[in-house]
Amino acid sequence: MARRSRVILIGERINAGFKDIGRAIREKDPGPIKKWAKLQAEAGASYLDVNIGAVSKDPRDMAWLVKTVQEAVPTPISVDSTQPEVLRAGLAAGDGRPMLINSTTADDEKLARVIPLAVEFGAALLGLAMDERGSPRDVRGRVENGAKIFAAAIEAGLSPDRVFLDPILMPIRFMQDQSPRVLEAIREFSLLSDPPPHISVGLSNICSQAKERSLLARTFLVMAMAMGLDAAICNVLDEELRAAVAAAELVLNREIYSDDFLKASRLKGKGAGEGTGRAG
Amino acid sequence: MARRSRVILIGERINAGFKDIGRAIREKDPGPIKKWAKLQAEAGASYLDVNIGAVSKDPRDMAWLVKTVQEAVPTPISVDSTQPEVLRAGLAAGDGRPMLINSTTADDEKLARVIPLAVEFGAALLGLAMDERGSPRDVRGRVENGAKIFAAAIEAGLSPDRVFLDPILMPIRFMQDQSPRVLEAIREFSLLSDPPPHISVGLSNICSQAKERSLLARTFLVMAMAMGLDAAICNVLDEELRAAVAAAELVLNREIYSDDFLKASRLKGKGAGEGTGRAG
Repeated sequence: MARRSRVILIGERINAGFKDIGRAIREKDPGPIKKWAKLQAEAGASYLDVNIGAVSKDPRDMAWLVKTVQEAVPTPISVDSTQPEVLRAGLAAGDGRPMLINSTTADDEKLARVIPLAVEFGAALLGLAMDERGSPRDVRGRVENGAKIFAAAIEAGLSPDRVFLDPILMPIRFMQDQSPRVLEAIREFSLLSDPPPHISVGLSNICSQAKERSLLARTFLVMAMAMGLDAAICNVLDEELRAAVAAAELVLNREIYSDDFLKASRLKGKGAGEGTGRAG
Repeated sequence: MARRSRVILIGERINAGFKDIGRAIREKDPGPIKKWAKLQAEAGASYLDVNIGAVSKDPRDMAWLVKTVQEAVPTPISVDSTQPEVLRAGLAAGDGRPMLINSTTADDEKLARVIPLAVEFGAALLGLAMDERGSPRDVRGRVENGAKIFAAAIEAGLSPDRVFLDPILMPIRFMQDQSPRVLEAIREFSLLSDPPPHISVGLSNICSQAKERSLLARTFLVMAMAMGLDAAICNVLDEELRAAVAAAELVLNREIYSDDFLKASRLKGKGAGEGTGRAG
């Protein structure tokens, strides 16, 4: 495996689907936005995902959100929208720091509109392994869509390191047969090129409406890391999750073992190591 | 992947390396043996490993140990010794229930002595992917040794389901580069045949002299399950470990999701679900 670097954790919390964020966007109240930006940055997020979709389709709302987050923290932003014009507004509102576009699909029309944004703004690009017909239920459909996105991005001049592929994780409660297929698709994605593209999932999808959400999320995440995944949009404030990731990074020999590996890892925020105490 | 069944957890605790067991073997005191047999059986162990090596090489001690455990619980036994004559004594002392021989290596002489024991006693056989030269440090050496053991066992008439291969897990504290290679070897073992052999590790090896032992063990275990492992000699009394295994079995679609999947899993002993409470 060609991977050498740490897992890229993308904070999921600045999403209008959460009540406090939805209200903050509607009322243009920077308080909750900046609070969650700081909390997630302190927890070690590599990117902060920002998403207005649940309350707004107005590109100006995305621009406001990006500016508000960038005022609060130096952490790069993942601009999250299904609408290319909303993505453009978020990218254009940035202060020049690198960003991640979340997302395109393998749909030709979508690729034709979103890839040029990545080129224009020097952004990384996350591609969902689905197309205009929806999400494949098998490994092959996922791999075909992922390979198509990857090829289009490379052809447009993006390096593999700027491409994130997402095999589309489904809720285990409702589509349990999908999770092993997602694991296999991750393995296939990791073999697409050397170095491979980044491979990411929307982790919280797996535990939608399930019990033991944290347990399911962190278990899937480290299993997926064994198969080649190196990124996830997730609850970075979950200390048990971060402890599991730190342990998996040791198992994969990406971080050097030391007796205080948990403290030396990204568990830097208040309460660092607590998860471990409870888990020991 | 052809796997359909639950992970096979082999209880490690009846080992003369533990002080109370060592003393019990020397003094022929069945108390501690039966206590740990019951505790591990209640925790859901599929086999109970029994090992006299740290205090005795006397085959009669192994025979006594096997009889003592079989008096206490119906759980099958894993007879654990590097000495074929000790293995034979343990197998011969059994009451006819199926047993697991732990272990042979890929050494020709060892294979020639141990495989006939598996045939004679109708036992399953665990093979360590090492030979007279020691343990390989690479993936290929592990796979060559594993394939050699598997081929020899099949040729002697054992079905793939009666063969367990162990890629040899090393302490992460001292040989950190080995754990990703063990994961890759597991994947290769899983492709040896369809159905594949069982694949097992001595899980506690990875956390030898390390901190956060439980976290490292359960993280490695579920990562290895993603790669095809379906057995482990481990601390079956570790509730966090059993909760992680239960979650991984859901992710791999080997157990059906239900809201009380932890309670419905092998977490049947006293305190079942506690691990989860702490982990939530």
